[in-house]
Amino acid sequence: MAVSNRKLADAIRALSMDAVQAADSGHPGMPMGMADAATVLFKDFLKFDAADPYWADRDRFVLSAGHGSMLIYALLHLTGYEKPTLQDIRNFRQLGSPCAGHPENFLLDAVECTTGPLGQGFAMAVGMAIAERHLNAVYGDTLVDHRTWAIAGDGCLMEGVNHEAVGLAGHLELGRLNVLWDDNRITIDGPTDLSTCEDIPARYRASGWHVVSCDGHDHDDVHRALAEAKDDPRPSLIACRTTIGFGAPGKQGTSATHGNPLGEDEVAAARKELGWEHGPFAIPVDIKSTWEDIGRQGTEQRNLWTERLGDHPERVDFERRMAGDLPKSFSMADHVKNLMADPQKAATRKASEWALEAINRALPETIGGSADLTGSNNTRTGDIDTLSADDYGNRYINYGIREFGMASAMNGMALHGGVIPYGGTFLIFSDYSRPAIRLGALQQARVIHVMTHDSIGLGEDGPTHQPVEQLQSLRAMPNLHVFRPADAVETAWCWQLALQNKGGPSLMALSRQGLPAVATDATEAGCAKGGYRLKGAEADRRIILIATGSEVHLALEVAEKLEGEGVGTDVVSMPCTQLFDAQDEEYRADILPNLQPGQILRVSIEAGTSFGWERYTMLDGLNFGLDRFGASGPAPDLFDKFGFTADAIAPRILAALDQ
Amino acid sequence: MAVSNRKLADAIRALSMDAVQAADSGHPGMPMGMADAATVLFKDFLKFDAADPYWADRDRFVLSAGHGSMLIYALLHLTGYEKPTLQDIRNFRQLGSPCAGHPENFLLDAVECTTGPLGQGFAMAVGMAIAERHLNAVYGDTLVDHRTWAIAGDGCLMEGVNHEAVGLAGHLELGRLNVLWDDNRITIDGPTDLSTCEDIPARYRASGWHVVSCDGHDHDDVHRALAEAKDDPRPSLIACRTTIGFGAPGKQGTSATHGNPLGEDEVAAARKELGWEHGPFAIPVDIKSTWEDIGRQGTEQRNLWTERLGDHPERVDFERRMAGDLPKSFSMADHVKNLMADPQKAATRKASEWALEAINRALPETIGGSADLTGSNNTRTGDIDTLSADDYGNRYINYGIREFGMASAMNGMALHGGVIPYGGTFLIFSDYSRPAIRLGALQQARVIHVMTHDSIGLGEDGPTHQPVEQLQSLRAMPNLHVFRPADAVETAWCWQLALQNKGGPSLMALSRQGLPAVATDATEAGCAKGGYRLKGAEADRRIILIATGSEVHLALEVAEKLEGEGVGTDVVSMPCTQLFDAQDEEYRADILPNLQPGQILRVSIEAGTSFGWERYTMLDGLNFGLDRFGASGPAPDLFDKFGFTADAIAPRILAALDQ
Repeated sequence: MAVSNRKLADAIRALSMDAVQAADSGHPGMPMGMADAATVLFKDFLKFDAADPYWADRDRFVLSAGHGSMLIYALLHLTGYEKPTLQDIRNFRQLGSPCAGHPENFLLDAVECTTGPLGQGFAMAVGMAIAERHLNAVYGDTLVDHRTWAIAGDGCLMEGVNHEAVGLAGHLELGRLNVLWDDNRITIDGPTDLSTCEDIPARYRASGWHVVSCDGHDHDDVHRALAEAKDDPRPSLIACRTTIGFGAPGKQGTSATHGNPLGEDEVAAARKELGWEHGPFAIPVDIKSTWEDIGRQGTEQRNLWTERLGDHPERVDFERRMAGDLPKSFSMADHVKNLMADPQKAATRKASEWALEAINRALPETIGGSADLTGSNNTRTGDIDTLSADDYGNRYINYGIREFGMASAMNGMALHGGVIPYGGTFLIFSDYSRPAIRLGALQQARVIHVMTHDSIGLGEDGPTHQPVEQLQSLRAMPNLHVFRPADAVETAWCWQLALQNKGGPSLMALSRQGLPAVATDATEAGCAKGGYRLKGAEADRRIILIATGSEVHLALEVAEKLEGEGVGTDVVSMPCTQLFDAQDEEYRADILPNLQPGQILRVSIEAGTSFGWERYTMLDGLNFGLDRFGASGPAPDLFDKFGFTADAIAPRILAALDQ
Repeated sequence: MAVSNRKLADAIRALSMDAVQAADSGHPGMPMGMADAATVLFKDFLKFDAADPYWADRDRFVLSAGHGSMLIYALLHLTGYEKPTLQDIRNFRQLGSPCAGHPENFLLDAVECTTGPLGQGFAMAVGMAIAERHLNAVYGDTLVDHRTWAIAGDGCLMEGVNHEAVGLAGHLELGRLNVLWDDNRITIDGPTDLSTCEDIPARYRASGWHVVSCDGHDHDDVHRALAEAKDDPRPSLIACRTTIGFGAPGKQGTSATHGNPLGEDEVAAARKELGWEHGPFAIPVDIKSTWEDIGRQGTEQRNLWTERLGDHPERVDFERRMAGDLPKSFSMADHVKNLMADPQKAATRKASEWALEAINRALPETIGGSADLTGSNNTRTGDIDTLSADDYGNRYINYGIREFGMASAMNGMALHGGVIPYGGTFLIFSDYSRPAIRLGALQQARVIHVMTHDSIGLGEDGPTHQPVEQLQSLRAMPNLHVFRPADAVETAWCWQLALQNKGGPSLMALSRQGLPAVATDATEAGCAKGGYRLKGAEADRRIILIATGSEVHLALEVAEKLEGEGVGTDVVSMPCTQLFDAQDEEYRADILPNLQPGQILRVSIEAGTSFGWERYTMLDGLNFGLDRFGASGPAPDLFDKFGFTADAIAPRILAALDQ
């Protein structure tokens, strides 16, 4: 006798409540509530093959409500993925288990993205659906023809980023995106009506979505709804009316099941209620083997796809892009050679546009965009057109005024693979997109954040728009490379380094204002090391000036004054502190020799907070920074007011030497 | 002959285009497009008296689309506020002018809040409307009976925080909130349909809002719509269909008017088109005097209100609260005395709840809340009930899963005055609310952010939920006090310091896990100085350990081991680095003597990024921190894995001494 859907779902419930109970922490309510809908999804709709989690044309499945991680761990185990094993599930939420508190894409192959920070899974799913349509337009149905499915909870839907993602998906008519909403009407604090009275379907319809409702515990009804969603050309929200903690007789339907173990007694009662007569972590053979059959349903499709790929004229290119490799020939060297042949004063945001002209020609996998600041971020190059529902094959996205949604979507695009997304906004608005920048860093997603207007050099828009603490606070983030190039040449090399870094996001901090050409070396060596000696001392070295971006030319002016006084001065350009920190001791000691204080005075100059610069200048060094909010006025007036001029800085350095 | 509304509006247009032209930067399109609607609002609806911008019962007006700052500068000048003067407007966007690029509440009395970062003005208006209804419930119609009006643009509506604010306002049925939407269908990049196809009215209705539309250039129609909005018991969105840059014949209706001066020729053409025959910055006497009459319309109402206040039995209390003063008797000393009489191990989030029990009893002006983590943040005390549309007089807000919206609303509440808002979430989600934390710091708004689960001590939820760089990146923000108390006593004092700081926000970083009592001094002196010597060396001092929060007791354990080896060790608890940095040289040198390296080894211990700790330890010091993302597992396992144990730390210190 065939195993019923209900039994398949109960296996998920049992594993979920057992694992949470064993860990004595976790969220049983969501997996138990959504087990039925997920069973129908995996059995009847999701295109996947458990034997190959990296099959390029698989459907993407995103558990946006990541706290319900046991749902995906149970599904992956039951359908026969190599990982997680039952032992991994027994070790749920323990150090070393791939079954972490929230699903982590770097711990399990079949986890498409790291979720848990609410709302971002949904927004990453939007990005995946964009990447799919784009690659479909490029390579056709024979290679790219899949869907993106997500499960989201009330929290995902309340977060602000949801609004941005919904708007973007609706505008781009991403019909391949289907989101199952776990409509259980419970949040951590209690019933959802404690804090919201939104008509969620109406809101989605207002943004061009298709909405269909179903009883999340009625398998046929879920099937009907998913089929309807699949058929509709719009992105779909499938409202699955569920009971949180379904099956736990004393606690289901309440927030008590949300974030705490059920307790031994309630687990026992749930076994009885569900008619589940098996011990903890025990899955009967017939149920497991039925699930494994489901895990093999996609094998034939995958084999056919692999044959098609073998015959495809663009196979090599497709495989290269999906592997995330750049063309072997890619280099910014020619571009730099041209720049050095004709050095020009230019804002680094403009230099970034020049670099992108070369990059977008050389790399068909880039997809640019801006959060409604295209003309200011200089992110659009002449040869790329607007990606829209009318032409997904284009390579520029008008993200709208949605910084967080843009950054999240870019994470999803990068994780989908086959594309390298970059998107622009002002550096100050990194605060808006920061949670996604961080999640990209954690997920090792190659996304390039183009952040212009990177200091008080922004000028008249004033302190709300002038970054102060942003540079250092971003540098403090693990696995994010913050680049702040000093001129057009450094900008080109920093772009190359960002593109070559497959293992994480990069952020380009670029000036609004024009900067003179300062680079003297036509190789990437200096930028690749994060910091390098741009100018060596002429007289006996007594000063090392360390500067970034728009303050490097200022450091050169200061150095000239100091040399004029007979004080030998190095100037170190430090476009990426993280890369500098990663250099070996010998290199770092050459650039910043670890002498006794007093022998050489180290001085940092950066038009942002001085906080953290002591790492490079030592406590008795000098730090020229901005440790307050900025002000509204023309940029030159601001640099003057806040002391970023050679006339203001040089005397203070000389005075310090005299002490 | 009476001056027409159209002429009144043209005066705004003329000043706006002239000021932007003179500054050669700015945004003429919005003020020119919304001049008509704003004229009707100020003339027929807004309750204000230009003679007293601080009248407590005035209507609040928020220009959420802050880039259109010339609109409010023109209105304030024309209606006769003391500031800005015509000269200030001539100096628009110049250093020193109160007419900054975006409206700044600290530069002009009548600017209710600083706006410009899109979406936040709208969300602050929601907070102001909450404060109004709450104070109305407390003091009655005789003292508090006003409205909140806002003007928002498409950008404000696209930002994610808008969704959170709309949901909160709809849920709380804030009928006193009326938002004029500048429906000009233009963003910086071009027509709005480049990036959105949302049916905005439908979305607002889905959250319980009333929506009414009007022709934003037809004064009667605007009047009708505003009257309807005022009468409706729901929060209202008034969709004002406008032409951006109205009156500039060659550019109106296009993004060319959004963020750039019109140019001399177009300004001249606009003068002609509008029939405005006056020179730059010239306002005819009849128009100015009509505007000034409007500025005096509220005087009588204000006088009557002042009389009512004089007779009111709660006048003293009301005035104290509106002035932002705490009761003179307020102190946590008794609470601390009790704690020290019976020292207990407790999570600082629990200790925070204890402190709040005392605070909420003593201070009727506190309004607590949480972004759906009430039981985890310990933000609710026994004596406060849920603030809802049914009872605005209560003092606890279920903000829902809306961290950014919560923080923005709290800014609005604080700026409204009369209340002190505090709200909880996990520290990791400071990334979500960060833009509002920053805007609160810039605006000098007393908001207390309660951020629990402040390190890997959060445990099993894993790296997405474990703060690493958050503490330091928040400390880098100007005018924000980050408190990380070590035990219940420090928690109580830090709360007192946060409440006493009228000039800006504070953030409490609190542990999930239990911490032993460590404080030995029953006065606030140590915490008030930001850092203090908790334990002096017994043997000759060779080590200074500097720690915060949950690592202070660990530092004490390390010190015990070191003293056991005959190595004299100070332990400095540093609950607030910003306050420590603000102490005089003598105090700082006493705690952290500026000796030559080698004489005393300074060591920082904090379970977050080590970035920035060199400020206190010098380059040759040791920094025990976490410079990577965390992991999922029980907290003790994580502290062990990442080396936060006395057994791991003490030997490394001894080894460093031997070098």
